[in-house]
Amino acid sequence: MASFTTFTQRPSINDMRLSIFALDGVFDTGLTALLDTFATANELAALQGFDAAPVEVNLVGVRRRVRTALGFSAMVEPLSAVRQPDWVVVPARHAN
Amino acid sequence: MASFTTFTQRPSINDMRLSIFALDGVFDTGLTALLDTFATANELAALQGFDAAPVEVNLVGVRRRVRTALGFSAMVEPLSAVRQPDWVVVPARHAN
Repeated sequence: MASFTTFTQRPSINDMRLSIFALDGVFDTGLTALLDTFATANELAALQGFDAAPVEVNLVGVRRRVRTALGFSAMVEPLSAVRQPDWVVVPARHAN
Repeated sequence: MASFTTFTQRPSINDMRLSIFALDGVFDTGLTALLDTFATANELAALQGFDAAPVEVNLVGVRRRVRTALGFSAMVEPLSAVRQPDWVVVPARHAN
């Protein structure tokens, strides 16, 4: 007989760890759409009563900062400092 | 009789001046999608043989840098330093 997980109570889990691995020259809309999608998912979960963000998102890179194709920059975590992620997504660099 | 502008020769114009006015806390995907759209339009125009970028895009703000909702930052031009723009677009700030 199959086993189902049902959400009759709001779960308080944060066990999906997602690393977004950004390289210099990353295509800006690709990167921001990813980050905003998961940020919005976490915000909606909070509105639904989740105690913890369902997805822990880390922006990681090879240096301390990443610089996008359009010239935006942000601090990133080194890969070595991130707990073993469940998923790593590498958004594409900008191609001319 | 109507007058038409025809493009039998590639125009070398850059007479649409667009200022994108970014405020701190701007919604990242809204800002980057705008910037990438016009950057791509200019790149496609160059591939078609245009001598000048059809749209001159300036990222402007009230300070020297703008910081987005996700924490990215970039240098911006002060509004006062920009030639009279034809269009000013103000992308929305992130709303929680």
